[in-house]
Amino acid sequence: MATIRMNCDYLEGAHPNILNRLIKTNYDQTIPYGLDEITAGAKEKIKKACECPDGEVFFMVGGTQTNATMLDFILDKAEGVISADTGHISVHEAGAVEYCGRKVITIPAVNGKLSPASVRAYMESFYEDATWFHMVCPGGIYISHPSEYGTLYTAQELKELREICDKYDMQLYLDGARLGYALACEDTDVTLPVIAKYCDSFCIGGTKIGALFGEAAVFTNKKQAKHFITFIKQHGALLAKGRMLGIQFDELFENDLYLQLGNHANTLALKIKKAFAEKGYEIYVDAPSNQQFFLVTKEKLDEINRTVAVDDWGPVEGGKHLIRVTTSWATTEEAVDLLISLL
Amino acid sequence: MATIRMNCDYLEGAHPNILNRLIKTNYDQTIPYGLDEITAGAKEKIKKACECPDGEVFFMVGGTQTNATMLDFILDKAEGVISADTGHISVHEAGAVEYCGRKVITIPAVNGKLSPASVRAYMESFYEDATWFHMVCPGGIYISHPSEYGTLYTAQELKELREICDKYDMQLYLDGARLGYALACEDTDVTLPVIAKYCDSFCIGGTKIGALFGEAAVFTNKKQAKHFITFIKQHGALLAKGRMLGIQFDELFENDLYLQLGNHANTLALKIKKAFAEKGYEIYVDAPSNQQFFLVTKEKLDEINRTVAVDDWGPVEGGKHLIRVTTSWATTEEAVDLLISLL
Amino acid sequence: MATIRMNCDYLEGAHPNILNRLIKTNYDQTIPYGLDEITAGAKEKIKKACECPDGEVFFMVGGTQTNATMLDFILDKAEGVISADTGHISVHEAGAVEYCGRKVITIPAVNGKLSPASVRAYMESFYEDATWFHMVCPGGIYISHPSEYGTLYTAQELKELREICDKYDMQLYLDGARLGYALACEDTDVTLPVIAKYCDSFCIGGTKIGALFGEAAVFTNKKQAKHFITFIKQHGALLAKGRMLGIQFDELFENDLYLQLGNHANTLALKIKKAFAEKGYEIYVDAPSNQQFFLVTKEKLDEINRTVAVDDWGPVEGGKHLIRVTTSWATTEEAVDLLISLL
Amino acid sequence: MATIRMNCDYLEGAHPNILNRLIKTNYDQTIPYGLDEITAGAKEKIKKACECPDGEVFFMVGGTQTNATMLDFILDKAEGVISADTGHISVHEAGAVEYCGRKVITIPAVNGKLSPASVRAYMESFYEDATWFHMVCPGGIYISHPSEYGTLYTAQELKELREICDKYDMQLYLDGARLGYALACEDTDVTLPVIAKYCDSFCIGGTKIGALFGEAAVFTNKKQAKHFITFIKQHGALLAKGRMLGIQFDELFENDLYLQLGNHANTLALKIKKAFAEKGYEIYVDAPSNQQFFLVTKEKLDEINRTVAVDDWGPVEGGKHLIRVTTSWATTEEAVDLLISLL
Repeated sequence: MATIRMNCDYLEGAHPNILNRLIKTNYDQTIPYGLDEITAGAKEKIKKACECPDGEVFFMVGGTQTNATMLDFILDKAEGVISADTGHISVHEAGAVEYCGRKVITIPAVNGKLSPASVRAYMESFYEDATWFHMVCPGGIYISHPSEYGTLYTAQELKELREICDKYDMQLYLDGARLGYALACEDTDVTLPVIAKYCDSFCIGGTKIGALFGEAAVFTNKKQAKHFITFIKQHGALLAKGRMLGIQFDELFENDLYLQLGNHANTLALKIKKAFAEKGYEIYVDAPSNQQFFLVTKEKLDEINRTVAVDDWGPVEGGKHLIRVTTSWATTEEAVDLLISLL
Repeated sequence: MATIRMNCDYLEGAHPNILNRLIKTNYDQTIPYGLDEITAGAKEKIKKACECPDGEVFFMVGGTQTNATMLDFILDKAEGVISADTGHISVHEAGAVEYCGRKVITIPAVNGKLSPASVRAYMESFYEDATWFHMVCPGGIYISHPSEYGTLYTAQELKELREICDKYDMQLYLDGARLGYALACEDTDVTLPVIAKYCDSFCIGGTKIGALFGEAAVFTNKKQAKHFITFIKQHGALLAKGRMLGIQFDELFENDLYLQLGNHANTLALKIKKAFAEKGYEIYVDAPSNQQFFLVTKEKLDEINRTVAVDDWGPVEGGKHLIRVTTSWATTEEAVDLLISLL
Repeated sequence: MATIRMNCDYLEGAHPNILNRLIKTNYDQTIPYGLDEITAGAKEKIKKACECPDGEVFFMVGGTQTNATMLDFILDKAEGVISADTGHISVHEAGAVEYCGRKVITIPAVNGKLSPASVRAYMESFYEDATWFHMVCPGGIYISHPSEYGTLYTAQELKELREICDKYDMQLYLDGARLGYALACEDTDVTLPVIAKYCDSFCIGGTKIGALFGEAAVFTNKKQAKHFITFIKQHGALLAKGRMLGIQFDELFENDLYLQLGNHANTLALKIKKAFAEKGYEIYVDAPSNQQFFLVTKEKLDEINRTVAVDDWGPVEGGKHLIRVTTSWATTEEAVDLLISLL
Repeated sequence: MATIRMNCDYLEGAHPNILNRLIKTNYDQTIPYGLDEITAGAKEKIKKACECPDGEVFFMVGGTQTNATMLDFILDKAEGVISADTGHISVHEAGAVEYCGRKVITIPAVNGKLSPASVRAYMESFYEDATWFHMVCPGGIYISHPSEYGTLYTAQELKELREICDKYDMQLYLDGARLGYALACEDTDVTLPVIAKYCDSFCIGGTKIGALFGEAAVFTNKKQAKHFITFIKQHGALLAKGRMLGIQFDELFENDLYLQLGNHANTLALKIKKAFAEKGYEIYVDAPSNQQFFLVTKEKLDEINRTVAVDDWGPVEGGKHLIRVTTSWATTEEAVDLLISLL
């Protein structure tokens, strides 16, 4: 058994700032369901970071929960959502979106991303098809940033997706389960205000970047959020002791802790990437954030796994295994060096 | 505008036998909801034709309705259904299956068919994947016979799909919206008893083969159908004057009318196919039943459509248009000759 | 066994005008899914009868299907629908509305009707309750006209329900499964234009008044109906040979046939009511249309049922049985006289 | 504003044992989704406490989530669930059960409880009704213990409900959101093994008795739980860092902490009840656990609320307000004395 795990980024508990705040507030009595003042403060911090004063923020517990609840809410009657075929909602959310009655319309991804050109082509052919009213109306676009392959959209790509949405009256939703890692990348021009400018709604993940749990769901226009709290409850997603979510995001958005944690993980991830490259391993996709993808032989994979657990995505063409190595807010330099020593 | 239509097989009303029976029974008073004696008789005829005495038959109005109601009923908790990516439920049922909360899991089709090998490969990789419990459980297999491209399964293929279902505790469901045309093909070894032997449930279409409307849903084991009538009602699919469905199927299964109508349409379809081939048109897929697929230039398509409406499936690689020509129980020899004269 | 049935109004086939039209048009080839010209004509007749030029009409097959599809469509996120506790959607639709994820919020009925005062009281207390956001938002009001007890709303009552809907941003939906019988009542001030004036949407039943099947769903403002045809398909409610519905409503709205049939049935129903009263039977509710409710002893019920089947609603307080006697477009004077002779 | 709150039992954070364990384990790396060893240990403790070795335990985050996910899972096709009309699922869960397509069939409650006699009467009349197949099949019974009015079932009542379930092939589900307080009551004969004996499944609440969040869902027969983890995920209810739930229940079930906390709250609640009685206030319902219900004038309510927040359930007949006073694991003797001093 490996003694150290780098196979995912939600293995540890919470960042100490969060734990300390939980301890400090433990005996406070606050009204439930996220209507307390701590939660209100956290919402304000997020709106400010997004430069989105007319927006509205809600907190939910988990990523699948947030995606399904948000998509089901923003889609209109008879509508489904377009996603990359590798998109998390299409593959690894156990059909949660479909459970809400919504089809996930898949388009082949390129390195985990949905290209504006492919969406544009889909939309054009959709309404040219005389049988279109027998098909689920594409009412929204789901993108994950970073994608499931660690890749990032550019501001230009978001702008183009926005234009498609405007043309066809669709919603643009960004799944930011690992958004902190994306925002902290050096060469990205996608900031929170850029996301808020181009997307109708998005989520900011806490679970994978230092929170015990929690995702912030952001509507860039609060008018869209009517009765959303009831809708959250109806989806079983309203936390009784809501301040637990408020506390965590209040800490993550204090002094840019969110970005600091992202930066920490990214720096270590790039160190790993560099080491794999120098040792001659094939880099599967050029990812700038905390998830890195390499091809290794089965023998090497087994050898690595004896000391450091990495994520095996199975054999690809040629027989080598695709592995994912993930750093997090909690990963130490020592762990990284140990992994590198195994290459 | 074309004066004759061969673009689909549900353009006319009903076969005269059905109309006459409607007229003859018009003032009879029968108890509603399909509990009448005419309907009971029709069910018995179908069970006999299927050599399936322990089965149970229900009638519903439309194809999408039947597929969605049946699949939602036979699938277990957390389960979705495997379908060819060209399958009717995946493309042209407006997300009716997903509306019931069920994911349609698509596998690339070959000429509209789902190959047993591709399903086997999917199932093997599914349970080898350590993350399988984050994915929708494949609980059933949906096939359409004939497929959306007019192709047929063989008895051997049904047997293999059955074996996969047995191995993984899955349901095999056959969508027979155009089943009459398939059964009447000359070179098929798939009969109703063969279908009843290998499938857990299937439907026999009436709408496209001489009924005003109506599909027969067959469970090969009546034990599986507990509370299905309530379930039908819950899905808005229980016809008040149920005998209308009973009458239609009682006529279709009287003296093999069902097969006679299929045979009529197939004969004409094959005449069309032969003519296209002789004139040098490319046959897109080698289909033995009432739907035929050809490649023609846009100019030729427009020319044909001025006299006989055919179905334009759009341009394919190379620029020619894929067209579907459909015969039905009501198609006349004259109409076919007219079409051929245009080639 | 009774030789004549007066237990419900959908025992026979169709009015001869409808049958004749089916025969006459049988070999016509029309485009499917209700996009044909006959259906277009029927829609225009209905819009004209409703004095509702900006409305939009769709046809579906059955009553439960229409109610569930319409309510699911007009309700917004997190919303449910208010209904009398005796309302058809609450009792006898097998949970079809709930199957669409919508709670039916029940309020005690008075003779089958929802009083405006009771709805007003519900709404006032709802928003006074600090926990309201933990409860399903009342987004619409469902009324059946005539009600399940044969009673009618007045124009004044519809106006008051409209005012409540305006105040709380709710939809008013009228289930007119037996609307023809209501419209034909002598002392009603509720006409189709009155309904169209006060309701956002409603349905006009065909099944129970001379059609083989079919309900017309009317939106009084076509803007509300965006993508409704896809939604109908998604709910399994889009008839392939759509002209079958168009034909039936085109005939029902030709020369006020709809009202003539209603008037015929009502006249016979009132004759029955008078006879029961004269013979000293207790009239359970004072209903003006084709459903009549009486109290009889179990012995009398059994005696009647030997000759004329009536509907037994079970014993009420005091031990007598509540029975429903229903006339229809097809009921004959002879049948009525036979029933009266048994009293 | 009141400085002390006794209006509900989920105002504070977590019991110190839980907080300490979170701190102690914070940097441990455990596999996600509740597959870790801490969670496994907690499950074993619960199964042992329930004397239910063949059972299976899952953890979810919230009460509404747990009820909806469990009920949707245990109910069969076309089935709904019987509940007291005051039941939490019927009133205050925002239609979460209906959102899953399941009707909540309500029966009038007596002091928050569903009497076996009333359920028996409902079931008998249900299947006597010839139209039963047009109605949602009652497939399960939901009870809350303690009820929303703080009352408890007896072992005899559970036994009778079990017998009804056996007779009609129904599931008995117990919502134990406040179960710890019920189990700790002095005069109850309902223990965890008794619950496990009579119910098919139930939940044990953590949120309201010392956890940050969390409910344990127990199936008394693990065979029933096939694919439940995927189902949880599909309902958005699978916590990524699953050990957070394991830790909390492992602590709650260590040395009967669960019962100790219940006992603490109950003792204080009974002290409050005694004081209200001695001061001449009307006790609305005779409740033995941590929720107490009294009638007070509006003036008195306002006076109390200035110092100690209590829960106002609105005016009842006679004009007095029904208030709920709730103690919890965290309530202090000083707070109770302060409240009493206000009477």
